Amino acid sequence: MKILVINCGSSSLKYQLINMEDESVLAKGLVERIGIEGSVLTHKVNGEKVKIEQPMEDHKIAIKLVLDALIDEKHGVIKDMSEISAVGHRVVHGGEKYAESVLIDDNVMKAIEDCVDLAPLHNPPNIIGINACKELMPDTPMVAVFDTAFHQTMPNYAYMYALPYDLYEKYGIRKYGFHGTSHRFVSKEAARMLGKDLRDLKIITCHLGNGASLCAIKDGKSIDTTMGFTPLAGLVMGTRCGDIDPAVVTFLMNKLNMSAAEIDKLINKESGVLGLSGLSSDFRDLGEAQENGNERAKLALDVYYYRVISYIGQYVAALNGVDCIVFTAGLGENAADGRERICKGLKYLGIEIDDANNSSARGKAMEISTSASKVKVLAIPTNEELMIARDTRAIVEK
Amino acid sequence: MKILVINCGSSSLKYQLINMEDESVLAKGLVERIGIEGSVLTHKVNGEKVKIEQPMEDHKIAIKLVLDALIDEKHGVIKDMSEISAVGHRVVHGGEKYAESVLIDDNVMKAIEDCVDLAPLHNPPNIIGINACKELMPDTPMVAVFDTAFHQTMPNYAYMYALPYDLYEKYGIRKYGFHGTSHRFVSKEAARMLGKDLRDLKIITCHLGNGASLCAIKDGKSIDTTMGFTPLAGLVMGTRCGDIDPAVVTFLMNKLNMSAAEIDKLINKESGVLGLSGLSSDFRDLGEAQENGNERAKLALDVYYYRVISYIGQYVAALNGVDCIVFTAGLGENAADGRERICKGLKYLGIEIDDANNSSARGKAMEISTSASKVKVLAIPTNEELMIARDTRAIVEK
Repeated sequence: MKILVINCGSSSLKYQLINMEDESVLAKGLVERIGIEGSVLTHKVNGEKVKIEQPMEDHKIAIKLVLDALIDEKHGVIKDMSEISAVGHRVVHGGEKYAESVLIDDNVMKAIEDCVDLAPLHNPPNIIGINACKELMPDTPMVAVFDTAFHQTMPNYAYMYALPYDLYEKYGIRKYGFHGTSHRFVSKEAARMLGKDLRDLKIITCHLGNGASLCAIKDGKSIDTTMGFTPLAGLVMGTRCGDIDPAVVTFLMNKLNMSAAEIDKLINKESGVLGLSGLSSDFRDLGEAQENGNERAKLALDVYYYRVISYIGQYVAALNGVDCIVFTAGLGENAADGRERICKGLKYLGIEIDDANNSSARGKAMEISTSASKVKVLAIPTNEELMIARDTRAIVEK
Repeated sequence: MKILVINCGSSSLKYQLINMEDESVLAKGLVERIGIEGSVLTHKVNGEKVKIEQPMEDHKIAIKLVLDALIDEKHGVIKDMSEISAVGHRVVHGGEKYAESVLIDDNVMKAIEDCVDLAPLHNPPNIIGINACKELMPDTPMVAVFDTAFHQTMPNYAYMYALPYDLYEKYGIRKYGFHGTSHRFVSKEAARMLGKDLRDLKIITCHLGNGASLCAIKDGKSIDTTMGFTPLAGLVMGTRCGDIDPAVVTFLMNKLNMSAAEIDKLINKESGVLGLSGLSSDFRDLGEAQENGNERAKLALDVYYYRVISYIGQYVAALNGVDCIVFTAGLGENAADGRERICKGLKYLGIEIDDANNSSARGKAMEISTSASKVKVLAIPTNEELMIARDTRAIVEK
């Protein structure tokens, strides 16, 4: 069975065609600048890269080009579109309706549209992508895999804000959490690597990429996560501020007369380690600058790591203990120094890092704690596409 | 030496006259409804209460009445105003300028006025109170004791928000923290009770009153606290929301077209356990309602305690361990069930509560953990007025 995984952004589209017999990636790629001058499709097969530059007015044209690339005589990997058994779509927001992945029908489309208010930047392109695929492959089953679904197991005392209750009832204002597919994938991998049942583990998964979130997992279920009503809350990120005193927002409204749109831009696009450092949202840049004596780069990194360490401590309390900490995504998978720094801040938990293993865990799944460590620490590359494909397979096979 | 302690609110004023020889309270009282119809002074001496109802147009008139009450033949405690050696004023915001209490002169007044932007509701009445006292007692030294001062030892990675750096430089947007006088007082008391040097202890102080904040204390210094740029952030409180996704504020601006003033009112006055329960900001009311099966009261309490437990966990990480947890203020001093609930959520720290001691610690300083407990847990009544008086004495004696 071959499954196409689609992740649609507002002007971009990522895809992977996965052979579910061995879970290998047959082809993958990225379309950029959809609807903008300079549209380009980068298609990768067997380590080879093909670039196709041509105008792409909309997502339907982009997806048509992707399908063409997949069946192309030269760089294609299938003979016919009918070889694609199903399409798995990443959908950011499933609201309170979806605690797991679902076969897409008209009711599901309606529900995803109902969540546009909650994810105005993300759900609309997800919907466009699904509709485009449905037009081009009307007989192929489509599955929606939600970023929020895994966190729907949070107890109400973790997801409710202490705001007037009717804001929850009328507008759905609560914590939803995101990166659910990633947290779910790496927690399952962790249990497999440790040879344990997920239900016997208290795990904290640290998805530290451009966006970043932690998740506290008990019995295989998310019981809390750092992102909130939107992906802004929690950890400090590349350009997002994470937690701040909410009164800062009203201060900015009063003092600088800023509009909601201006503030949203400020806290989402101009903050985080970029805002603090005034330099870059890229942690490698900041590391270099710090080594060259840049104080603001050092501050940005100090704030970033302190927040991660503090939140891990918070989730140890939420779980009333912890068996395993997992690092994943860009920084979590690749930055040995970052992992070391975080674990040093958690010595009180009896964590001991195996330096050799930590140094060599770069994009591969490894245990990086010593055998004496009281908490297992793992670095595990995330694979949201594979998780989406697995869900899609399970649903279409039912 | 006798010291008068003054805490001025916008329409109220609290005072205590303290005899520093034995730190006993000679008299104390409260003026309410200053500048509003129905002004009343309640003066307490030796357990007796005197009520003086008469129009008080402003704070100067109120303070004059307080001084009259203190030297009154019947219910006074001193013969002459000259017996008051100094006045200690609670001042909410000292910005980054004051890391400790200070003798008030023109420069200090200017600095307190400079902080009005940061504490628009609190510093103006504090200033009015100081000026009124200066007019009535021109020769008596006055000392300012700041709510923010104790937290000025926080490292920059704890107090900086991940916002564009110039918001800090231009507008002073950072975490300041409040309740400093209380956290300082109970941490000193804790060291004394444990017979240890403050510098050898990692302490988490939990000020759980109408307003609520935690403080992480290392070497006797605040290294982090839950309140932020304003007293809104952090824990859930009676009517304040504490931490929320800051994007909720911009959502409310967009969706409900709310102004900054309306949102400030919503998140400061209509949220917290009141907003969640729709019932009351008083924890006794909520406890009763929960017992009678009220689900929303239960939710409000669940959210409240979960946040306290989570934040204690966060500060254990910030301190990389903890020796002592202190409960103080309304709920912290009096609610045995609340303390028990919090400590149960922290079992992973090896905390054990002595039920008998916990039950009997109601408004008196007691160790409530067992001798086997890995973390000492104390209930200590706070005494901000005494702390203000001690600071005032130390400064005027210098």
